Amino acid sequence: MSEVIKIDILSTIDTPADLRKLSVNELPMVCQELRNFIIDACSSNPGHFGSSMGAVELTVALHYVFNTPYDRIVWDVGHQAYGHKILTGRRDRFKTNRKLNGLSGFPNPAESEYDAFIGGHASNSISASLGMAIATELQNDSPSRKVVAVIGDASIAGGLAFEGLNNASINPNDLLIILNDNDMAIDRNVGGLNSYLVNITTSRRYNNMRDGLYRFCKKLRLISENSKGSILRFNNSLKSLLTKQQNIFEGLNIRYFGPADGHDVESIVRILHTIKDMKGPKILHLCTKKGKGYEPAEQSPTLWHAPGKFDKTTGEIIRNTAPNQPCKFQDVFGHTLVELAEQNERIVSITPAMPTGSSMNFMMERFPKRSFDVGISEEHAVTFSAGLAKEGMLPYCCIYSSFLQRAYDEIIHDVAIQNLPVTFCIDRAGIVGEDGVTHHGCFDMSFLRSIPGMTVAAPMDEHTLRHLLYTAQAIEHGPLAIRYPRGGGEIVDWRCPMQLIPIGKGRKLSDGNGDTAILSIGNIGTNVAHAIEKAKAQGMDVAHYDMIFLKPIDEEILQEVANRYNRIITVENGTIVGGLGSTVMEWMCEHGYSPRIKRIGIPDRFVAQGTVAELHKLCGMDADSIVSLLTSQW
Amino acid sequence: MSEVIKIDILSTIDTPADLRKLSVNELPMVCQELRNFIIDACSSNPGHFGSSMGAVELTVALHYVFNTPYDRIVWDVGHQAYGHKILTGRRDRFKTNRKLNGLSGFPNPAESEYDAFIGGHASNSISASLGMAIATELQNDSPSRKVVAVIGDASIAGGLAFEGLNNASINPNDLLIILNDNDMAIDRNVGGLNSYLVNITTSRRYNNMRDGLYRFCKKLRLISENSKGSILRFNNSLKSLLTKQQNIFEGLNIRYFGPADGHDVESIVRILHTIKDMKGPKILHLCTKKGKGYEPAEQSPTLWHAPGKFDKTTGEIIRNTAPNQPCKFQDVFGHTLVELAEQNERIVSITPAMPTGSSMNFMMERFPKRSFDVGISEEHAVTFSAGLAKEGMLPYCCIYSSFLQRAYDEIIHDVAIQNLPVTFCIDRAGIVGEDGVTHHGCFDMSFLRSIPGMTVAAPMDEHTLRHLLYTAQAIEHGPLAIRYPRGGGEIVDWRCPMQLIPIGKGRKLSDGNGDTAILSIGNIGTNVAHAIEKAKAQGMDVAHYDMIFLKPIDEEILQEVANRYNRIITVENGTIVGGLGSTVMEWMCEHGYSPRIKRIGIPDRFVAQGTVAELHKLCGMDADSIVSLLTSQW
Repeated sequence: MSEVIKIDILSTIDTPADLRKLSVNELPMVCQELRNFIIDACSSNPGHFGSSMGAVELTVALHYVFNTPYDRIVWDVGHQAYGHKILTGRRDRFKTNRKLNGLSGFPNPAESEYDAFIGGHASNSISASLGMAIATELQNDSPSRKVVAVIGDASIAGGLAFEGLNNASINPNDLLIILNDNDMAIDRNVGGLNSYLVNITTSRRYNNMRDGLYRFCKKLRLISENSKGSILRFNNSLKSLLTKQQNIFEGLNIRYFGPADGHDVESIVRILHTIKDMKGPKILHLCTKKGKGYEPAEQSPTLWHAPGKFDKTTGEIIRNTAPNQPCKFQDVFGHTLVELAEQNERIVSITPAMPTGSSMNFMMERFPKRSFDVGISEEHAVTFSAGLAKEGMLPYCCIYSSFLQRAYDEIIHDVAIQNLPVTFCIDRAGIVGEDGVTHHGCFDMSFLRSIPGMTVAAPMDEHTLRHLLYTAQAIEHGPLAIRYPRGGGEIVDWRCPMQLIPIGKGRKLSDGNGDTAILSIGNIGTNVAHAIEKAKAQGMDVAHYDMIFLKPIDEEILQEVANRYNRIITVENGTIVGGLGSTVMEWMCEHGYSPRIKRIGIPDRFVAQGTVAELHKLCGMDADSIVSLLTSQW
Repeated sequence: MSEVIKIDILSTIDTPADLRKLSVNELPMVCQELRNFIIDACSSNPGHFGSSMGAVELTVALHYVFNTPYDRIVWDVGHQAYGHKILTGRRDRFKTNRKLNGLSGFPNPAESEYDAFIGGHASNSISASLGMAIATELQNDSPSRKVVAVIGDASIAGGLAFEGLNNASINPNDLLIILNDNDMAIDRNVGGLNSYLVNITTSRRYNNMRDGLYRFCKKLRLISENSKGSILRFNNSLKSLLTKQQNIFEGLNIRYFGPADGHDVESIVRILHTIKDMKGPKILHLCTKKGKGYEPAEQSPTLWHAPGKFDKTTGEIIRNTAPNQPCKFQDVFGHTLVELAEQNERIVSITPAMPTGSSMNFMMERFPKRSFDVGISEEHAVTFSAGLAKEGMLPYCCIYSSFLQRAYDEIIHDVAIQNLPVTFCIDRAGIVGEDGVTHHGCFDMSFLRSIPGMTVAAPMDEHTLRHLLYTAQAIEHGPLAIRYPRGGGEIVDWRCPMQLIPIGKGRKLSDGNGDTAILSIGNIGTNVAHAIEKAKAQGMDVAHYDMIFLKPIDEEILQEVANRYNRIITVENGTIVGGLGSTVMEWMCEHGYSPRIKRIGIPDRFVAQGTVAELHKLCGMDADSIVSLLTSQW
C-alpha cells in the first residue's frame, strides 16, 4: 500500500507518542496523509468512509494534545474512529478492518488499550466518560487523567446522551465533550437540537458582530479579562440575544465553546490546549464536513457513509451490477410498505435515523406527511408509534434489531400492555456480518417472545415478508414483530400478490420419510433447504417446516413432528437461548414428548465481525454444517 | 365516606362535563373538597399521596378548560392522577384504588376512556402525546382535538422525554406540555435540568424586574403587542440575560410559558384559555408543592410520597410496629452494601432516582462521594456504571426490575460485551403487588439470561442475598445480576457473616424419597418450603433444590434430579417464558432426559394489581397451589 500512496510522515507514527514529537505546523501534512491512507484503504476494503474522513483533524489534534492512552478518548459510534485506529498502532493491520479475525470496525477495548470504551451504538460516550472521569477522581490518579468524549451531532440527540449531559452537570468532573457536528446522521440529521446547532453555527449576524462587540464591551469594562468563564458566558448570552436562540448546553450548566472550524488542525490544537485543564464539564463544538477532502463524498455524504468499494481516482462506486439479482429484504419491505400505504391511509411509518438503511425512504418520498424519521431515538420512535396507534393509525416502526434493544421497555410498557397494533419491522436481524459484535441482531426473538400478547414472525423469503406486512394492517392484531436479515434472499421476482397469513400458522416445505425433521424460522431456512437437498443426494429424506411464527408457535406442526420424527433440529438466526429451539423444547417437554432435539442458532457468546457466510459457518448455521449434523449419529 | 367529609360540590361532579358547568370562582372549593377526598381515601387505603395532592389545581383546571375525554390528557407517571380519576366517573370506586379487581393506581385506558394512555413508567408522555397529536392531525379530526401531556420535573429529565421534546419541535403539532414542577422525584430531584428549573423559578432579580422592564421596553417600542410570540421571546431572552441561565426549551424551539403558581386554579384556567389554541408545541411551567394542603406531607414530601395508612387528623403514619419483624430485602441490601463498602474502597453505588426505595440511602449517607443518585435515567445509570467499572471501580447499580427494562441495550452493549464487573441489584423483582401491571418485575430473568457472559442470581433468603453481594466484589466475575423481591423474607436475624458462593452452584434444601423434586429460584422458594411441609403432613416426601443461579445453571443438580426423579416442578417469581423452567426443560431435552416437568411462575399474560399474596395465588405460586400440583396426578 505504501508503494502507491505517500505516507512519509504517517509511516513514522507507530503510536501517538510519535505524533507528539512533531511540530504543530507538520500536523496538516499528517492529516493529508492520513486522509489519503483512509481513501486508499476504504476504496479496496469497504467501511464507514465519510465519518472518519470528517474527523481527521480532530483525531490528530486529540492525540497530539492529550496523553493517550493514559488520557482516554471515548468515541461515540466508532465509525468516525478509523484515523484513531491508524494512529494508534494499527496502521498495518488496517487492511483487515471489519474482516474475520481482523480489526473491528468500531473501537473495542479488547483490541487496543487506545480504545477506551466500546462504541457501536450511538449516544453512550458521555455517560461512559463521566463514569471514567469520576473513577479517576475517586482513585486520585496522578497526574490527573483526562477523559474526552467525541460525539456527533446526531448521537448527542439520543436520550442516553441527554441523560449523560444532565448528570455531568451536577457531578464534580472535568469531562471534555467534543461535539463533532457534521450536520448529518447516516441520513440528514433531524430534530430541534439539530436546528439549534445549525442556527448557532450559521448565524452570520452573530459571527459578524461578535468580535466588534466584544472589544467594545471590554473597553467599557462591561467584561473583565480575568475570568474565562465570564467571557464565555458573555459570548453565549450575546449569542442568545442576537440569534434569539438559547444555548442548551449553557442551560444545563456545561461550559460551551464554539462553534469552531473542525478542519483547522492547528487551531483545534490551540483551543484544546486552552481548555484542557479547565475545571468542570465543558463542550467544544467543532463543525466538520462528512467525507471532507474527498470531493465525491463531500457532495453525497449519505451515499458515501459506507459506500462499499470504489475507484479512488474516479470516485466511482463499484457495484455488483449483475442483472436479475434479488432485491434486498429492506427494499422489499420499503416498496411493499408504499403499496400498502396507497391502499390503507391509516398506515404511517417511523424510523429512528435509518430511512435509507431500512429503505423507508421510498415511503418518505411517496407519503412525506405519513413518514417520520425521528432521529437517533429508538425509545421515542416506539412510544411515538404507540401514541399514533392509540389514536387509530397503523404504525410500521422500522428499527434494526440490535438498536431495538434500546426500546425494550417502551415495547412492553407503551405498546404491549395497551395491546396496540404497532408493527415492528426489524431489519438487520441475526448475523449482520462486517459490523460485528455490537451490531448483530441476536436477541430480538428471545426478548420479544417473553412479552405477553406479542406476535413474533420471521419470513423465510420475500413473498412471505410481503404477506406478513399485508397481514399486519389487515387484521390489526396488537403488536406484531416481523424480523428479516441484512441483505437479500433468493427470489428475484418478489412482487407477488399479497395474501393473509393466519397468525401462528407455519408451513410444511418438505415431507421426510426418515426420522429427522428440521424446524426453521426466517430466511436462514434457505440454508436449511440447501442442506436438505445435499442430504437428499446422500440418500436422506428430511422433513422441513418453516415455522414463520415464533409466537404464537404453530402447535399443529409441533404435534405432527412429535408424532412422526425422533430427531428434530431447530434452526434460527438468533441466540439459541430463549428462541425457537427453546420454544420447541418447552412444548415437547410440556406435552410429554421426548424426541432428540438439537438447536442451531447463534451460540451463547458474543460473535465478532466477518462476512455473513463466514459467521454462519462459525455458528454452524451454514448448509454444510447442517448437513454434517443431519448425517451424524445422535 | 361522604358522611364524614364534606363533598357538596364534588358529589355533583360525575364527569368533567359537570365540572364545566360551574363558574370559575367555584373551582377553589372543588379543589378543597377534592383534596379532602384524597386525604380521606388515602388515609385508609394507602397509595401515592403526595404527587396527587400537589396536582389538584392543575387537574381541575385541565378538565375545566379542555373538553375531555375528546381532548386527551396524558399523565406522565400516573400517581399524580388520583384527582383525575376522582373527577372522571370513578369517585365512588376510588376506595378500590390499587386493589385486586379495583382501580389501577395508574392511568390505564383499559379502565376508562379518560385515561388517554398508560402511565406507569416515567418520561413517556411527550412521545405518546406527540404521536396522538399527529394522528389527530392526519385524520383531520374536527373540531381539532387537543392533546396535553402532564409531566413532572423529575420525569422530564429522562432520556425518552428529551427525545420526545427534540422531535416535538420539528413536527407540526399543537401539543401542550404541562411541566408540573414540585422540585421532587420520589426523593429530592437531581441533575442539571433540575438546577436550571429551580433557578428560573426562584430568580428574585428577574421576578422583580420583569414587569417594570417590560413596560419600559414597550414604551420605547422595542417590543410590539401584536405578536404573543415576540413578547414571550422577549421575556425569555431577558430572563437569560438577567439570570445568566439559558432557556433549554426555547433552545429546542418550544415556546415556554412560566413559571406560574400551580396552586392558583383560577389563574391556571386563565393561562390555559390563553394558550390552548396557540399553534405549535408549547410548555407551561407550573410550580407546585408535593403534598400541598396537608401540612405533614408538605413538611416531609419523600416520606409522604406513598406513606401507607395514616391518621388523617393527627397526621400520624400508622406503622406495623410488631417487634422482631424481618427486615425488607432492600434494607438487607442497603446495610450490607455499606458493610462491604467499608471493607472495599473500590465499591461505588448508583441508582436512578430510587435511593430511599432501594435503601441505597444508607450508602449515600455513609459514603456520599461514592454514591450516585443520577435521577430518572436508567440508561445513563447503567452506562455510567460501565464507565466506572472500566476504570477499576466496582459499581453496584440498583434498579427496580421493571425499570431495568429501560437499560436493556446498555446492559448488553456497554457492560456485557466488555465483560465489566457491574453488579446489578435488581429490587422489586417478580410480583410487586399494588403497583400493578406496569410495575411487576416479570421479565428480568428472561431478558438477562439471553445475554452472553451474564450471571443471573436470585437469593432465597436474606443470608444468601448477603453472600451474593459479598461474592460479587470478591471475585469480580463480569456482570452479575442479583434479583430480590419487594418486601421482606422470614429471617429476622439477617446479619450473618458473609461468605463466598461459588458461581453457578445451587443447594439442596431437602431430600425427597418420592418421585418429585421442586427446583426453585429466589425468595419464592419459601412458598415452596411451606408447600413441601404441608405435603409432608399428607405423607409426601418432596425434594427441594434452591438453584440460586439461573445462569450459569447448576448442572450437577440437574443431573442428580434427572437421575432420581420422574416429576419436576420449577418455581420462579418471573415469567415462565425463558426463565428457570425453560432452562431446565432445555437442559433435560439436550441431555436426553425426559422427566415430566411443570413450570410455575408468572404466566404469559399481563397481571394487574392486588396484594402480593393474592397475586401469588392468582399465578399459582402460593404454597396451597403448589401443594395442589404436588398432590395431583400428572
